[in-house]
Amino acid sequence: MTALHHRRPEESDHIRVVEAIPVWWGMPPEAAPSRLLPRLFFQHFADTSILVEDDGGQLAAFLIGFRSASRPHTAYIHFVGVAPGLQRRGVARDLYERFFAMMRERGCTRVDAITGPINRPSQSFHRALGFALGGDTEIEGVLAYLDYDGPGEHRVTFSRSL
Amino acid sequence: MTALHHRRPEESDHIRVVEAIPVWWGMPPEAAPSRLLPRLFFQHFADTSILVEDDGGQLAAFLIGFRSASRPHTAYIHFVGVAPGLQRRGVARDLYERFFAMMRERGCTRVDAITGPINRPSQSFHRALGFALGGDTEIEGVLAYLDYDGPGEHRVTFSRSL
Repeated sequence: MTALHHRRPEESDHIRVVEAIPVWWGMPPEAAPSRLLPRLFFQHFADTSILVEDDGGQLAAFLIGFRSASRPHTAYIHFVGVAPGLQRRGVARDLYERFFAMMRERGCTRVDAITGPINRPSQSFHRALGFALGGDTEIEGVLAYLDYDGPGEHRVTFSRSL
Repeated sequence: MTALHHRRPEESDHIRVVEAIPVWWGMPPEAAPSRLLPRLFFQHFADTSILVEDDGGQLAAFLIGFRSASRPHTAYIHFVGVAPGLQRRGVARDLYERFFAMMRERGCTRVDAITGPINRPSQSFHRALGFALGGDTEIEGVLAYLDYDGPGEHRVTFSRSL
């Protein structure tokens, strides 16, 4: 396995990450969730995000997260991706642990994230990392919050102490 | 004209704002830019955002903005809307001035925003408020940055001293 190099993303990394999303997710660009990741996250939340490259400088993984401004004891993980060839090797777990450590240092006591009801791998991953799953309505076979992110945008919530 | 009441948005206001967007923008929900406004902004950036209601408690306008975490002297205006019946009365200008004052108090010296090349009213509005417009490629008749927010997502940038 190639060595992985972690650093803060820069604004100029935005396009690489956005272009990786449909490839890594195996979706046509218009169906991929790229619009959830506008450039603003690379401008304004770079200091709490992590970009991972392999020895050849290729994008290997990323975690985009921030500390809540309104709820300063809460950290939020917005978007995480790992290149398909590097999955199931603990890369995402390592990214989460790095983020947890960074957020504990800043005084956060809780970390939140969300996913869609159909994203079972994400639900299993977060459960294994000690997140409590939240939802109040059975949607596609799991408990989720109906219309959480707008009409038709149902979500399972994740929350964990730090 | 009804009196307008300004306050910080709460998480429970998210659905009202998301449902107003297609109506105010005159677009079908699936074409409206509602996905640019996930619930996270109402959870984590409520303290620097403004929601406006009329005397009857109806949603009149909103401004969603935040202070950059990575660039703490920069404020960012993410999304602004005014109900069609209240436009051209200075409601948006007043929201911007309230946001500018709030951000100056926090030590910001610059405020940024963006729009699409076809959004001429937004470009005129920001120019009138003293923003400098940015772009390096002529797109739909104005200077904009090609693929700024991802492939096909061209943007005109706005920047202004505070």
